[in-house]
Amino acid sequence: MRPDQSASYPEPSFPVAVAWGVDGQSVRLLDQTLLPEEERYLRLATIEEVAEAIRTLRVRGAPAIGIAAAMGLATVTRRHLSDAGPSVEPRDFVDRVHRDAEVLRGTRPTAVNLGWALDRLEQAFSLGLEQGIEAGVLAMVREAEAIASEDRDMCRLIGEAGAGLIPEEGCGILTHCNAGALATGGIGTALAPVYVAHARGIPVRLFADETRPLLQGARLTAWEAGKVGIPVTLITDGTAASVMAQGLANMVIVGADRVAANGDVANKIGTYGLALLARAHGIPFYVALPRSTFDLGSPTGLSIPIEERDPSEVTTLGGRALAPPGVSVKNPAFDRTPAHLVTAFITDGGILRPPFEPRIRDLLDHGSS
Amino acid sequence: MRPDQSASYPEPSFPVAVAWGVDGQSVRLLDQTLLPEEERYLRLATIEEVAEAIRTLRVRGAPAIGIAAAMGLATVTRRHLSDAGPSVEPRDFVDRVHRDAEVLRGTRPTAVNLGWALDRLEQAFSLGLEQGIEAGVLAMVREAEAIASEDRDMCRLIGEAGAGLIPEEGCGILTHCNAGALATGGIGTALAPVYVAHARGIPVRLFADETRPLLQGARLTAWEAGKVGIPVTLITDGTAASVMAQGLANMVIVGADRVAANGDVANKIGTYGLALLARAHGIPFYVALPRSTFDLGSPTGLSIPIEERDPSEVTTLGGRALAPPGVSVKNPAFDRTPAHLVTAFITDGGILRPPFEPRIRDLLDHGSS
Repeated sequence: MRPDQSASYPEPSFPVAVAWGVDGQSVRLLDQTLLPEEERYLRLATIEEVAEAIRTLRVRGAPAIGIAAAMGLATVTRRHLSDAGPSVEPRDFVDRVHRDAEVLRGTRPTAVNLGWALDRLEQAFSLGLEQGIEAGVLAMVREAEAIASEDRDMCRLIGEAGAGLIPEEGCGILTHCNAGALATGGIGTALAPVYVAHARGIPVRLFADETRPLLQGARLTAWEAGKVGIPVTLITDGTAASVMAQGLANMVIVGADRVAANGDVANKIGTYGLALLARAHGIPFYVALPRSTFDLGSPTGLSIPIEERDPSEVTTLGGRALAPPGVSVKNPAFDRTPAHLVTAFITDGGILRPPFEPRIRDLLDHGSS
Repeated sequence: MRPDQSASYPEPSFPVAVAWGVDGQSVRLLDQTLLPEEERYLRLATIEEVAEAIRTLRVRGAPAIGIAAAMGLATVTRRHLSDAGPSVEPRDFVDRVHRDAEVLRGTRPTAVNLGWALDRLEQAFSLGLEQGIEAGVLAMVREAEAIASEDRDMCRLIGEAGAGLIPEEGCGILTHCNAGALATGGIGTALAPVYVAHARGIPVRLFADETRPLLQGARLTAWEAGKVGIPVTLITDGTAASVMAQGLANMVIVGADRVAANGDVANKIGTYGLALLARAHGIPFYVALPRSTFDLGSPTGLSIPIEERDPSEVTTLGGRALAPPGVSVKNPAFDRTPAHLVTAFITDGGILRPPFEPRIRDLLDHGSS
């Protein structure tokens, strides 16, 4: 019996990317590199295991990475304390915590949530330390739990705000990449409105772009939406325009990696094209994100650097060559969608419509939309 | 020393999809299913071998399929005659030719050029027969050679017409799928203008959409353009919009599977989206095709049926699962691009600009633009 609105959708049955291990001595992490062929959960008990999981993309999605790092550092530290026992040498212990944090920080240097989550844990640890090592460790564990719990709430708020944009009679919703439960500590960002609408009995159909080159749409979005019971149709990225023209998709909802102060969006390569196609077909293009994804330090999208990734992501798959050896490849991880193509932002502080710049500042300054 | 204009580009070094075998007893066919990992040429000497090659897509592209069927039927028939010797029984021989033609006709029922090429061979055979079996067989061989040679000329004419649209100072050209040498008996349709411009010393850079699901852009276009020495950059289909926004691609040239009387284009899935993206970026969108691809029997694109293909093309690759089992998939082979998004048609009868309907009719009626 939960009195809050979250009881209205089946959160407990959602795929969970990261959780505390049942033994209290580990982190339980869904190995996303094995999806969709296998649903295997890893038990991570050392800092090296946590670091390896983040580095090799067994967990991905900025919020989920932050949670994995936080739970990982807290778990390993707690375990270290129980191994050391009452004879623990405070200075060594503190040094080790910071060393472990550095190991995790180095796994994905560009992931904003990673450094942010580790900073929070180290600060909590330092504050707690004033009352002794055990208090410091407990403060870390509580901070990791807080990060996970805030993320869960953030997803729920995005879902509830976004569900209001979906007509009662239902519709087709096109998404790109995976901004779902697998990328967060809750029900996702771009997929959250879809899940909430579905739980409210609104008939939604999800169209998942497969999202080349890494196929997060095929491997992850189609998998998690299917698991939750959302009717989902997988399409190649080149099929999106046809699906819009045929009236099958009536809105687009995507996530964001970073949004500039003026509302320009950096997100998975292919997002910008989708925004243009949505505009050409007169259907709304929504970007769902927590307010922490807005970056006032980037005045426009042009100040957001675009990572160029290895050609082999495009030219090979599972060890098989898809293209002639040595071919030149352009493989940007992200693209920039100008703000004028965005119908609205769906945030944990509500829906933001144009003009975006003042409203984004207002949201970040005052915490409400 | 060839006096004609074709001497100005290096046609002899082009990849050749189909040719007469050097032994005069077979067809030499590049096995496109092995590309880009292996460049292997098959020696096809029986009707079953030719049929298998067409059925299993070892040769693809409407013109190349027509040529393979024509050369295949002619070769097998000639061989049959030399095996039978002077004792040949005319009625049995004629029956066998028609039986062989039927075997080939059944391999790809929807390929227009296949039936058209076989009809031409059977007619030539019938006419030749009036002067005896040997004359009939020779007429078939000549007809197959004529089909191949006309296709080569058609490609050259398209290339020369289209090269005039490419600025002297060069530019970036985006293409989709493979409408190149591998799909025809010559230098291709969409790629022909690129090859002619390159041979004329115009600096062109080709951007090849990988073209999911079957990756003809990655496997075939990148391979053949690289072989000819065209600078080519492979991109995922979702990267096209970014390449346009960055000013790297300044025009789009694609082929066509069928063009309706009003100029609506049926072509590989993803073409329609590209046309919209080109329009949004203010860059020209050209469709290159021989006049035989115009279909006056289809008043608009809506009368062109769109083949829905097997979900496994999207969900698996080389036996590996890319998506969860049983996921719903929409996998249309083609899409429809409305005529108003086409800047011009590049044909073997010249460049057609709007209004398309009267000019298409004029081209087909009078044989010139």
